[in-house]
Amino acid sequence: MRYLKYVLLLFVSIGLMGCGDSSSSSGDGGAPASYVPPGEKDDYYLFYSGGHSGQVFVAGLPSLREIQTVPVFTPSPGHGYGFDKKSKEMMGDYKWGDVHHPGLSKTDGTYDGRWLFVNDNANNRVARISLRDFKTKQILGPIPNSMGNHGSSFVTPNTEYLLVATRFSVPLPKGRHAPIETYEENFNGIVSGLKVDQETGEMSVGWQVKTPPFNWDLGSTGKGPSDGWAFWTSYNTEMAHDSLEINASQRDRDYAAFVNWERAAEVVANQDIDTQNGVPLIDPAEHEGVMYFVPVSKSPHGIDASPSGRWIVASGKLQPTTTVFDFEQFTTAVENENFQGEFRGVPVVNYDAVVEGEVPVGQGPLHTQYDGEGNAYTSLFIESAVAKWSLPPWDDETKQDMTQAVKDKIGVQYNIGHLLIPGSDTKEPYGEWLVAMNKLKKDRGLSVGPEMPETSQLIDISGEEMSMIEEDYTPPEPHFAQAVPADVIDPIEVYQKENNDHPEARWDTKNTGVTRSGDQVTVHMIAKRSQYYPDKIEVQQGDEVTFHLTNIEQVSDMIHGLGIAEHNMNAIVSPGETKTFTIEADRSGVYPFYCTNFCSALHQEMQGYLEVVPQ
Amino acid sequence: MRYLKYVLLLFVSIGLMGCGDSSSSSGDGGAPASYVPPGEKDDYYLFYSGGHSGQVFVAGLPSLREIQTVPVFTPSPGHGYGFDKKSKEMMGDYKWGDVHHPGLSKTDGTYDGRWLFVNDNANNRVARISLRDFKTKQILGPIPNSMGNHGSSFVTPNTEYLLVATRFSVPLPKGRHAPIETYEENFNGIVSGLKVDQETGEMSVGWQVKTPPFNWDLGSTGKGPSDGWAFWTSYNTEMAHDSLEINASQRDRDYAAFVNWERAAEVVANQDIDTQNGVPLIDPAEHEGVMYFVPVSKSPHGIDASPSGRWIVASGKLQPTTTVFDFEQFTTAVENENFQGEFRGVPVVNYDAVVEGEVPVGQGPLHTQYDGEGNAYTSLFIESAVAKWSLPPWDDETKQDMTQAVKDKIGVQYNIGHLLIPGSDTKEPYGEWLVAMNKLKKDRGLSVGPEMPETSQLIDISGEEMSMIEEDYTPPEPHFAQAVPADVIDPIEVYQKENNDHPEARWDTKNTGVTRSGDQVTVHMIAKRSQYYPDKIEVQQGDEVTFHLTNIEQVSDMIHGLGIAEHNMNAIVSPGETKTFTIEADRSGVYPFYCTNFCSALHQEMQGYLEVVPQ
Repeated sequence: MRYLKYVLLLFVSIGLMGCGDSSSSSGDGGAPASYVPPGEKDDYYLFYSGGHSGQVFVAGLPSLREIQTVPVFTPSPGHGYGFDKKSKEMMGDYKWGDVHHPGLSKTDGTYDGRWLFVNDNANNRVARISLRDFKTKQILGPIPNSMGNHGSSFVTPNTEYLLVATRFSVPLPKGRHAPIETYEENFNGIVSGLKVDQETGEMSVGWQVKTPPFNWDLGSTGKGPSDGWAFWTSYNTEMAHDSLEINASQRDRDYAAFVNWERAAEVVANQDIDTQNGVPLIDPAEHEGVMYFVPVSKSPHGIDASPSGRWIVASGKLQPTTTVFDFEQFTTAVENENFQGEFRGVPVVNYDAVVEGEVPVGQGPLHTQYDGEGNAYTSLFIESAVAKWSLPPWDDETKQDMTQAVKDKIGVQYNIGHLLIPGSDTKEPYGEWLVAMNKLKKDRGLSVGPEMPETSQLIDISGEEMSMIEEDYTPPEPHFAQAVPADVIDPIEVYQKENNDHPEARWDTKNTGVTRSGDQVTVHMIAKRSQYYPDKIEVQQGDEVTFHLTNIEQVSDMIHGLGIAEHNMNAIVSPGETKTFTIEADRSGVYPFYCTNFCSALHQEMQGYLEVVPQ
Repeated sequence: MRYLKYVLLLFVSIGLMGCGDSSSSSGDGGAPASYVPPGEKDDYYLFYSGGHSGQVFVAGLPSLREIQTVPVFTPSPGHGYGFDKKSKEMMGDYKWGDVHHPGLSKTDGTYDGRWLFVNDNANNRVARISLRDFKTKQILGPIPNSMGNHGSSFVTPNTEYLLVATRFSVPLPKGRHAPIETYEENFNGIVSGLKVDQETGEMSVGWQVKTPPFNWDLGSTGKGPSDGWAFWTSYNTEMAHDSLEINASQRDRDYAAFVNWERAAEVVANQDIDTQNGVPLIDPAEHEGVMYFVPVSKSPHGIDASPSGRWIVASGKLQPTTTVFDFEQFTTAVENENFQGEFRGVPVVNYDAVVEGEVPVGQGPLHTQYDGEGNAYTSLFIESAVAKWSLPPWDDETKQDMTQAVKDKIGVQYNIGHLLIPGSDTKEPYGEWLVAMNKLKKDRGLSVGPEMPETSQLIDISGEEMSMIEEDYTPPEPHFAQAVPADVIDPIEVYQKENNDHPEARWDTKNTGVTRSGDQVTVHMIAKRSQYYPDKIEVQQGDEVTFHLTNIEQVSDMIHGLGIAEHNMNAIVSPGETKTFTIEADRSGVYPFYCTNFCSALHQEMQGYLEVVPQ
């Protein structure tokens, strides 16, 4: 793929020869750098959060082509997800989620390609997807004491913890009622440390920190000098509980929370902390060093630690600057107790003691990403643009006139929210590309009526100036995304027979069949090109019929389905996989079942009949 | 967009000047013809059936970028579909469908941009999508007496009817049990004529024709000389009921059914036909002229009427030729009763009397599309290729050596099923592009584990030789697709206030509020930037709470959501739309609700609280 860029340059250089005319918005004369010819592969995996679709969308970079939807919080019959016993149990009572912030697992501060973690803001959960088979393995939650798991999931440099914070506050313990008018007294927010088992990836709730009823927004984890810390902004330190668009925008400064998660873990390990709903709940007023507040500009949204971990950048969407905090100055301020006061026993650090500078990036700054070469890129919601600017250290001239820190600006269509540079939250970002995640499609591309998709735009950041290359659409509604070089991921495409640990798996058609115990019927079934064993099942009306379906193929892409006519069932089994599912044989008659996922030339002939004999 | 092709040619012509080097597989030196620069629009809407995902995918042509998923048979929280009262009732008992063949509405044999009809093979239904707002308006079914609505939905030249046929056979009436061993005696297939109301598009079951227990496969409708007719192939005239991959491939010739739907409608209108499950059921043995059988080569799949309506092309996937029937010869054969026999009272037309020729297209021919310039394009499953060949009339030399009818062949990756040319089933195809819909992804593009997407490939058919331009991926699992020029569709993006006929709609915040009757609580709510009215709702534990939510915005893309924490509810309302939905307030506590679909700078502040007071 990369050679395309040189082709690009070639055409630029020979533009004068009259063959530089082109359709590419990148101003060159060749194929756009986003073009991946048939048969070639993208350079990066791009993982979009799916918002209220409840899923994760996997795309390729630079082409932006969506490759796969990974079902997480919402049933997906195309994958048989939410129809078999295991995935149904994992999803629990909820048929949707609101996925905002994917977090890739890390080792030594860089992506390791093991897992992807995503949050559910609506039902207070976190899910883990394995990047070996791109399937959801665990859904943790609803998290106790937690409401609105929005500031989530932020991964520590070695995936020891996922740090998550609540967007909403409720009376604790969850389920207790208190009038909303008593919001300040009775409601609380929560920061949680979710432990991740290093071998299995299994998540568990390690501990929680009680906070005032602020609405915690975005966050990030520290590294280098700030390793052991996590950061969140709040847009409602006013503690408003109604008409927030007015009442939560009163103060010129809100707070960011700087949380020492290593200290929190120590406190819980070494002291006897009261638990709430089974979780050790730390009151930061009683345990020094766990949490500090830092003033940030009005109604902040994003707060992003730089690759070095020294610079913590927060943007206040109602103020035209982004603020750079120096974590080293923060450490000094804490040591010297350079505080401007406290709030509910939590020290409020003196703003001037920790600010390195305020960069006039433009109107409506939200989130910041890094290219690993000393540049920061901030999304400007109101301007519909991306600003490129220099991280400190700044020369004296720049310090006198911070406009000089801003290097370039490019318009996007329209109203950008998050933006993404591969590896931005690692210690060594990959740079090269920036994806602008725009919130309003409006007139971009063909109209599909009142319900519109979102748009993504690909920006080349390999040069001094940014250039717009490509535009694509996504289902509602990505909020953030992460991208990782293709070679970091090592997917399996077949489940080896010897690794299938399903107790009811069958590999020999001789061992398949139908057994009965009372009105419970069990079917051990094998699917292989191009037949089911058995392909005739006779039951009595009123039976409950449980299938254990094994796909005994050991060949890539040889997926089989089992759709049962008029019984609301579609199972999908990958090569070497066994799934269990149950139907009620409540109506008499004959009901065909058939392979729903194309498998071979005789796929159409892969079918059978369920006979339901009337009582 | 079209000028891109000239840029393409420009580069070809100046290739010798040394600036023709490129990455494009189209062999040119410019941007690929599939490239739609940011801000420009695609030329065609491409409507993919979503297979067992149960949805329709809307993409742009030539870019192949997916723009939107239209939820049809499967709940989709990203659209709030399947969560509100109306869509839940429309979906009935089923949470998925198996969508195979989209059919665009027609006027005078060309697409009119009103509706898109799609089938559900699993639960025997047909849905209608309005192309004004790209939303599902009606789901008809399960269709009485019908099992496996696969040969569906084929639209008549003026959308008078959708013609659909069953893939499976069952004992009639549906629900009757008979042992599968009595398949030949007790089981039947069905061809249905679904009436379409010309004003509203409302579908109803007009009549049905009883058939032997053949597995009907693909079909198409006639036009010109064959107007009034519809055609289906069957791959199981052996009437096998087990191990079909062997037992349904015994005969060298299966049958196609030629059904005169105008005659069927006459019969029902003018004679007293017995009904079954409320539908007039025609026995073709008793009503001459309704149905004829035509022998076709072994295990046929597709049967496609040419733009003129004279040539009916059927392909037998186990024979390396595609067969061209002459409908005029068919008419003569019927007039002269040139039959080789009959099957269950249905005349079997003499094969030699109706065949114009057999074209040696290659291995595993499945489906055929037309470019409107006398060329046919047949997908070759086994060869993984597309063959371009000439329709009759053929010169004598070609008739002597039919290989001369084959003009070009191009490889695809891999195992193509359907293929698509815009307007192929109309009297005036648009040509220009061909989309190969490939069934196996295998190693194409980045790996996403065992569950793989499908691939689509864009082929430029504007020249003598076909050329491969672009490749993209789709979720599981498109079977067929249709495409229409963008200017044929006229979408609305805002529901005008005056057109909102929801009886509980509210437009003035003064008229919103919470009312109670026993334990039934009703909330009349307005959503507008950036607040809900009301944004505080107090109920008693055990109440059933019904919301009538109106989005009073009248601006494009100003969509609002309403997600209720831990209550499995996400509503989405488009500008000017009102939706009704209900939750159970079964747990005490305080539960935030918030806008799940980005709306404006203060979207994050758009929230409220549901107070559930304990009993």
